[in-house]
Amino acid sequence: MAALSFELETTSVGSRARAGKISTDHGEIHTPIFMPVGTVGTVKAVTQQQLKDDVEAQIILGNTYHLYLRPGTEVLEAAGGLHKFNGWDRPILTDSGGYQVFSLAANRKIKEEGVMFQSHIDGSRHLFSPESVMDIQRSIGADIIMAFDECPPYPSEYGYAKKSMELTHRWLDRCIQRLADTPDKYGYTQNLFPIVQGSTYKDLRKASCEYIASKQAVGNAIGGLSVGEPEEMMYEFTELCTENLPVDKPRYLMGVGTPWNILECIDRGIDMFDCVMPTRNGRNGMIFTTEGVINIKNKKWATDFSPIDPGLDNEISRFYTKAYLRHLFVADEILGMQLASLQNLSFYLWLVGEARQHILAGDFASWKTGMVDQVKRRC
Amino acid sequence: MAALSFELETTSVGSRARAGKISTDHGEIHTPIFMPVGTVGTVKAVTQQQLKDDVEAQIILGNTYHLYLRPGTEVLEAAGGLHKFNGWDRPILTDSGGYQVFSLAANRKIKEEGVMFQSHIDGSRHLFSPESVMDIQRSIGADIIMAFDECPPYPSEYGYAKKSMELTHRWLDRCIQRLADTPDKYGYTQNLFPIVQGSTYKDLRKASCEYIASKQAVGNAIGGLSVGEPEEMMYEFTELCTENLPVDKPRYLMGVGTPWNILECIDRGIDMFDCVMPTRNGRNGMIFTTEGVINIKNKKWATDFSPIDPGLDNEISRFYTKAYLRHLFVADEILGMQLASLQNLSFYLWLVGEARQHILAGDFASWKTGMVDQVKRRC
Repeated sequence: MAALSFELETTSVGSRARAGKISTDHGEIHTPIFMPVGTVGTVKAVTQQQLKDDVEAQIILGNTYHLYLRPGTEVLEAAGGLHKFNGWDRPILTDSGGYQVFSLAANRKIKEEGVMFQSHIDGSRHLFSPESVMDIQRSIGADIIMAFDECPPYPSEYGYAKKSMELTHRWLDRCIQRLADTPDKYGYTQNLFPIVQGSTYKDLRKASCEYIASKQAVGNAIGGLSVGEPEEMMYEFTELCTENLPVDKPRYLMGVGTPWNILECIDRGIDMFDCVMPTRNGRNGMIFTTEGVINIKNKKWATDFSPIDPGLDNEISRFYTKAYLRHLFVADEILGMQLASLQNLSFYLWLVGEARQHILAGDFASWKTGMVDQVKRRC
Repeated sequence: MAALSFELETTSVGSRARAGKISTDHGEIHTPIFMPVGTVGTVKAVTQQQLKDDVEAQIILGNTYHLYLRPGTEVLEAAGGLHKFNGWDRPILTDSGGYQVFSLAANRKIKEEGVMFQSHIDGSRHLFSPESVMDIQRSIGADIIMAFDECPPYPSEYGYAKKSMELTHRWLDRCIQRLADTPDKYGYTQNLFPIVQGSTYKDLRKASCEYIASKQAVGNAIGGLSVGEPEEMMYEFTELCTENLPVDKPRYLMGVGTPWNILECIDRGIDMFDCVMPTRNGRNGMIFTTEGVINIKNKKWATDFSPIDPGLDNEISRFYTKAYLRHLFVADEILGMQLASLQNLSFYLWLVGEARQHILAGDFASWKTGMVDQVKRRC
C-alpha cells in the first residue's frame, strides 16, 4: 500500500483555483472536494448507501474526540477500524479532536504535555496529547490523520496567538515522531496532514506556513479560520496561506463553510473542505439549492409542488416537492431532516464537482462570479 | 377504474389462514399483508424509495386526524391527493380519525352528530362527523376509506359497549350515504371498509359482524381490539369475528400487533394488519429479527459484528452490524432510528410474506408454531 499522493491536473487562468486527484489506499478523490462530516461515525441522518449513491461523497470525516468517547477505540479496534465498523469503504479523514476539546472551555486545561479535559457525556477526565491523539487516529483507522493543534479563538492577542502557534508547531513535531514510531494499523497507509495556525496575524500565518511546509507532509491544512472573523478576513488569510504552502500538495481549509465561501476559497487555491453546515443547517430547515437558499419552514412553500431542487440530477432532490418537505418540517418529522441532509450534501458535492469541471474547462473565474450570486440568493 | 376486489387464493388445512389478492386502482396487494403506518404522510424515518425497495411495502396507512390538521385538506387537494403529495404511488388506506379523537380524552365530546375535539397542536376546536370524515378521506385520496366509529376502551361496561356499538352502526349508515352522495376525488375508486365493534362481549361482536356483513362492503375491519385486553382474549374475539364476517372479502384487524400476534391472527383468518410497533419500538431500540427480539442498547451487542439480521435478504439488515446499530443508539444518532425502522418494517413484511408462502404451500399451521417461538425469543 502507498502513501497518499496528489496529482495536480490543472491550474486556472486568472485564479488560483486548481483541479487535482488525490490517491489513497481507499480510492481516489477528485479535487476540489467537499467532505461530509460524520462526527460520531455517521453522517447524521444519512445512510452509507445514500452517501455513495445519492450524495456521491468521495471521502468523509470522523471526529477523534467523539469516536474516542463513543464507541471508543476498543470497539473500533475489535471491528477492524471505522471503515469496517460503519461500512464506509472510501477514504476517511479524522480531525484531531483539538478543536472539540478547546470548545469545552471551562472543562479543559492546556499544558505543554497536552490538554486535560472532561467528557461532555459523563464528566470523566481524559488527556489528549499529540502522542495519544495519533494513537487514537491510528485505531480509528483514518486514511488522513490530522495533527494535534491548538485553535485560538477570534480575536486573539498577538502574544497569545504566537505562543499558541509555537505550541502547535512543537506538538506537530511530536505527532510526526509518534507516527514514525508506530506502524499503520490495518494494512493501509495512514497519512498525516499538519495544520497551519497563527490567528489573524500575517507574519504568524506566514511563519506557520513555512514551518509546516518544511515538514514536507503529503498534504497540508489551514486551521483557525472561520471562527468568527469577518468573511473578507477569512478570504484574505486563506489566500495568504495558499501563497505560502506547497503547490504540489493538497490544501485543506478546515471547517469552511457556506457554498459561496467554498467557491471563493477554491478561487484562492483550496482543494479540500469540510463543514457541518449542510447537515446541521439542513436539520433546521435551511436548504441549499442550485436556485439559492430556502427557509423551507416558510409559509410560501406550503403549496409549491416543484421539486426540492430541479437543478440537481439526484433522485431525492427531484422526487420530493418543496411543499412536502415543508410539511415534514412543520410536522417535526424525522424524514424532513433526512431529505434536507441529502439535498444539502448532494448540492455541496454538485457544487465542487461543477467547480472542478469549470477549472478543467478553463472558465472557472467567470463561472464563479455568476455562481456565487446564484447560490447566495435568498429564495 | 374499478372497485376494490378480492380473490381468495387458498385457505389452509387445520387453520383459518388464507392467502389472497386485493386489486385496487393503485395496484395489487398480496395477503396476508402488513401495512406500515404513515401517520402524517410519512412512515417515520423511512423514505418512499426505501419503503418500496428495502421494505417492499405494498400498501401504507395515512391518518385522517393528523393529515386534516397538517398539512390540511386544502394543501392535499392542491397537490392532487396524498399519493401525489408524498410520492407513494401504491395503495393507501386512511383510518377514520375516530381512534385518535377518542384518545384525546378530556379534549373531546361525543354526540350523535359526531365528535367535538380540540387539536393537540393549537387547541383549536373541530367537529368530526361521519360525513366530514368521509369528505376528508376523499380529499386525502385514500384507496381504502375507513368508516367513522367509536372505539370503546377496555374494559367497558356492557351497557356502554352496546350503546357505543349502535352509534358506530348508525354512523356507518351515514358514512355509506355520504360516499354514495359524493364522487371519487381523483379519478380512481375510493372504497369503504366498515368496522366491527362490540368490545369484549360475544353477543355484541356477533351482532356487529352481522350488521357490518349486511352492508356487503368490499372489505371489513375489526376495531376495538388490542386496546389493553389480555392477548388470549384478543385472539378469541378475533376468531369470533372472522367466523362471522364474509369469507369472500378481506378482513382487516386494526392496530395489531407484535410479530406473534400477527401470526396467531393470520391463523384465525385475518388478511390485513397495521401497527406502529415496528417503527415506534424501533425508534426506541427494540429490534425485531428472524432470530428474535433484540434490545439493541444492551451492552452485549457492543462488539457483536454480525449483521443486524442475517436471515433477511435485505441490504440494510445485512450491511450494518448489531455493534454499529447499538453505537448509533447509545450516541443518540438519527441514523439509528432510520436503520431500526427499516429493519423492523422489512422483518414484518418478510414475516407476512413467509406466512403467505406457507399458506400457499399448505403447511402454514405447523410452520406457524415454530415461527411464533422463534420470533418471540428474547436474544
